Amino acid sequence: MHERVNGLDCLDPKLATAEHFSFKGIHLPGNTSNPLGSKVTPVNVVQIPGLNTLGISLARIDYAPFGVVPPHTHPRATEILTVLEGSLYAGFVTSNPNNQLISKVLNKGDVFVFPVGLVHFQKNVGYGNTVSISALSSQNPGVNTIANVVFGSNPAIESDVLAKAFQVDKSIISRLQAQF
Amino acid sequence: MHERVNGLDCLDPKLATAEHFSFKGIHLPGNTSNPLGSKVTPVNVVQIPGLNTLGISLARIDYAPFGVVPPHTHPRATEILTVLEGSLYAGFVTSNPNNQLISKVLNKGDVFVFPVGLVHFQKNVGYGNTVSISALSSQNPGVNTIANVVFGSNPAIESDVLAKAFQVDKSIISRLQAQF
Amino acid sequence: MHERVNGLDCLDPKLATAEHFSFKGIHLPGNTSNPLGSKVTPVNVVQIPGLNTLGISLARIDYAPFGVVPPHTHPRATEILTVLEGSLYAGFVTSNPNNQLISKVLNKGDVFVFPVGLVHFQKNVGYGNTVSISALSSQNPGVNTIANVVFGSNPAIESDVLAKAFQVDKSIISRLQAQF
Amino acid sequence: MHERVNGLDCLDPKLATAEHFSFKGIHLPGNTSNPLGSKVTPVNVVQIPGLNTLGISLARIDYAPFGVVPPHTHPRATEILTVLEGSLYAGFVTSNPNNQLISKVLNKGDVFVFPVGLVHFQKNVGYGNTVSISALSSQNPGVNTIANVVFGSNPAIESDVLAKAFQVDKSIISRLQAQF
Amino acid sequence: MHERVNGLDCLDPKLATAEHFSFKGIHLPGNTSNPLGSKVTPVNVVQIPGLNTLGISLARIDYAPFGVVPPHTHPRATEILTVLEGSLYAGFVTSNPNNQLISKVLNKGDVFVFPVGLVHFQKNVGYGNTVSISALSSQNPGVNTIANVVFGSNPAIESDVLAKAFQVDKSIISRLQAQF
Amino acid sequence: MHERVNGLDCLDPKLATAEHFSFKGIHLPGNTSNPLGSKVTPVNVVQIPGLNTLGISLARIDYAPFGVVPPHTHPRATEILTVLEGSLYAGFVTSNPNNQLISKVLNKGDVFVFPVGLVHFQKNVGYGNTVSISALSSQNPGVNTIANVVFGSNPAIESDVLAKAFQVDKSIISRLQAQF
Repeated sequence: MHERVNGLDCLDPKLATAEHFSFKGIHLPGNTSNPLGSKVTPVNVVQIPGLNTLGISLARIDYAPFGVVPPHTHPRATEILTVLEGSLYAGFVTSNPNNQLISKVLNKGDVFVFPVGLVHFQKNVGYGNTVSISALSSQNPGVNTIANVVFGSNPAIESDVLAKAFQVDKSIISRLQAQF
Repeated sequence: MHERVNGLDCLDPKLATAEHFSFKGIHLPGNTSNPLGSKVTPVNVVQIPGLNTLGISLARIDYAPFGVVPPHTHPRATEILTVLEGSLYAGFVTSNPNNQLISKVLNKGDVFVFPVGLVHFQKNVGYGNTVSISALSSQNPGVNTIANVVFGSNPAIESDVLAKAFQVDKSIISRLQAQF
Repeated sequence: MHERVNGLDCLDPKLATAEHFSFKGIHLPGNTSNPLGSKVTPVNVVQIPGLNTLGISLARIDYAPFGVVPPHTHPRATEILTVLEGSLYAGFVTSNPNNQLISKVLNKGDVFVFPVGLVHFQKNVGYGNTVSISALSSQNPGVNTIANVVFGSNPAIESDVLAKAFQVDKSIISRLQAQF
Repeated sequence: MHERVNGLDCLDPKLATAEHFSFKGIHLPGNTSNPLGSKVTPVNVVQIPGLNTLGISLARIDYAPFGVVPPHTHPRATEILTVLEGSLYAGFVTSNPNNQLISKVLNKGDVFVFPVGLVHFQKNVGYGNTVSISALSSQNPGVNTIANVVFGSNPAIESDVLAKAFQVDKSIISRLQAQF
Repeated sequence: MHERVNGLDCLDPKLATAEHFSFKGIHLPGNTSNPLGSKVTPVNVVQIPGLNTLGISLARIDYAPFGVVPPHTHPRATEILTVLEGSLYAGFVTSNPNNQLISKVLNKGDVFVFPVGLVHFQKNVGYGNTVSISALSSQNPGVNTIANVVFGSNPAIESDVLAKAFQVDKSIISRLQAQF
Repeated sequence: MHERVNGLDCLDPKLATAEHFSFKGIHLPGNTSNPLGSKVTPVNVVQIPGLNTLGISLARIDYAPFGVVPPHTHPRATEILTVLEGSLYAGFVTSNPNNQLISKVLNKGDVFVFPVGLVHFQKNVGYGNTVSISALSSQNPGVNTIANVVFGSNPAIESDVLAKAFQVDKSIISRLQAQF
């Protein structure tokens, strides 16, 4: 019989094997043939059950030329990103009231930190594909992609809330919502 | 000499007074004469130094008729909101991939929870002013107002990152950025 | 099948609804027709299952004229109290060896903090009913009412322990125990 | 120059010596010639600076025949007590609403747990002196002795608050307050 | 039906008894008739189910003359040790790059701290048996005895890894492995 | 003037720049010309001051053919390792009493987890150089290399403690100590 913590299986220590603590294929390119030109391959407690309660996970990201990881937050994790190939323009925005953009062009071998809960993004600014790997300080960090959350939720957020929030008329909100 | 924790003054226990643990005026209406028609009055470790390390804080929010607290996140806190007067439409959006909107019309005496790091918003749907009070699970919860962070950061996020993120052309992004 | 954390149900994210994150009726006065002249209405993980693991909860307190919330502790939470109507005399006592009483008369709109685990109390010092709302830094803060715990436990603490503790003879202890 | 965490000195690792991590004399009997017939000898971050941030501390307690450690709480720690010599009657009371007394006579070699923040007490029920040693789950656990906190604070809690709390008339409260 | 946290039973508070929070026999000498001349008697969540989630545990250690507790780590706890009888030479080694040995001869009544995760050891340097009691900052601290982990794992670590690690030839590694 | 947390500088948010959150050069091979044939390049709070309090860090490791990262522990972190180039044999040993070796040959793109505080090691089993990158769940994880800690501390652990621990005579211990 399985015990569970955080709603996930606890391994019986005597039955634990290397398979519970490993994952294969993080070197494989993700398919970036999509409007954003980027693909995230997560490696967290869903892929590696032995990570449960251990407070860390990974993600590989592939970027086609001009590919973007759009502004998003992780509700439960800080992220530390390493560029493996290519070049990225990456940034995060500090909390209210300053909303300062802290950004940098990152080349191969550069590392950048996105503090917990802050909005951040990346864009391929190299001549070819770019690849990065990120570590996150939770086995289950979660992702909120801002555009999808705000303009593509199910059901939709009322357009007049969004019109007031973004200080534009509803036709623009409708156009934004129509994308998702 | 003062000691400090979290970059803030530690009280010498012998010199602690009730003033270090209190705040006056959370019953006073905030000024909602602004484009959003809402006003947040924070009561956290900045206002009450004795909250340092204690992991809780408050905020009062006033809403003019149709006033909105636009979509935002708290990077370090869950929020529990109580409607003191009036009626609110409030909601939060769950993480990827579901992005489910969990929302509800709240009347006087209703309580609603916004889990840590998730995007949430409120809108006055009553006939007059609405007032709510929120508690947050950090003495320094932080606020990221999505519209300001994404379209009003200083300096601005590059428009082509935003165009890709929101899947619209740059003219719409420029119009959104022009509001902030 | 339900998973559980902290012995409570975990919501399947896809089945979560607004009802799991909300509560109705915190505006309703509690019945203060009791010897203390006060009534606590808790709103924690028992009332809002979605609070599980989120580290925050609420309570409304009603006070008849002269009503008292007797000295008590929360074993797992700091409390931040707001006076909604009326006036309270509130205080907490610091740890040994100082045992300093930090107290204050609070009027409508005043906020006061009771640090985690310290003994605190409130008394209505207004002319009519008083109402306050508290936030606590745990979804399950617990309450130890000192008089009940010390003189009304089941079974009773031996009277000679209490006689030594309070430095009075057993007849006084018996009289105190007889009240509970 | 010293760095500090929690308001206490941080050791420069290169200058750390065994003296920063040790204490002498926990075998020495405390002086129990006092009304309670007990004496606590604390060994926490005040006595061992190297304990800072490490989340554990000790206390030795001596009990004369019939000596009592009166009902108290630790606001920030669970306690695990071991009887080294003699016999103790020890107990704790669970939170509201049950207020169940969980108690036991402990002899040499017995261990008992007082969960974080709950009211607990000990009494020597042996024929001679009793000695116990406790470990606490904080380097700075704090102590609230109920009788002193409630009836001996400085300044005093108003007698009518206490009269209501303990459901007795003020003359009894005065008598209790006069002891401290 | 039992609920579980950390894979262990949660007590129904109404059914909790003193037996769930106590242990008998920590005064009984452990059998030190083994090559190390020492014996550890653990008192953690396995022996006291009520310790679950409370973050503390105990261990008694007996040492025959010249008995040794060999170098080991606790992956999840700081330890604070008290000498009850006899004399110990105890020490821990700081992290890379300093690897400073912080050690001390401890006599009856001396207390010593082993910070979380650092390698430490004890040796009886008295004329007779020595007894110590340790508290650990976890209900489930774990133990990694270095010699057993490194030279006695099942299956064995490859001898050439160990030969490189210890900078000796494989014959010495084989001899070390043969002991376990 | 700088504030400090954990003994390190706190950034004034208004003065924070991208340089406080970034690092260059993790793509550069470390020099493996040493007896172990491996080199660790750490990227933690020492290299990136903005990581303070954020609970995550990185390390790059280079392995010459047959190079070894010898058995070691991190006292404050779980590690998740990714093979970027080449092949590694990697493993960790579970706590007492099982001391099970959980190991696996890892090729490019494989990920493996070393749970907090457990002894683990890696060995290059490819035909050329191998490169891995690790993330650790602390901004200051610490490293205890077993061989250096046990046989190369300063001053040395007494040889008879080690002789008993490893169940060999002192001549072998001396030989082991002579390597460090």
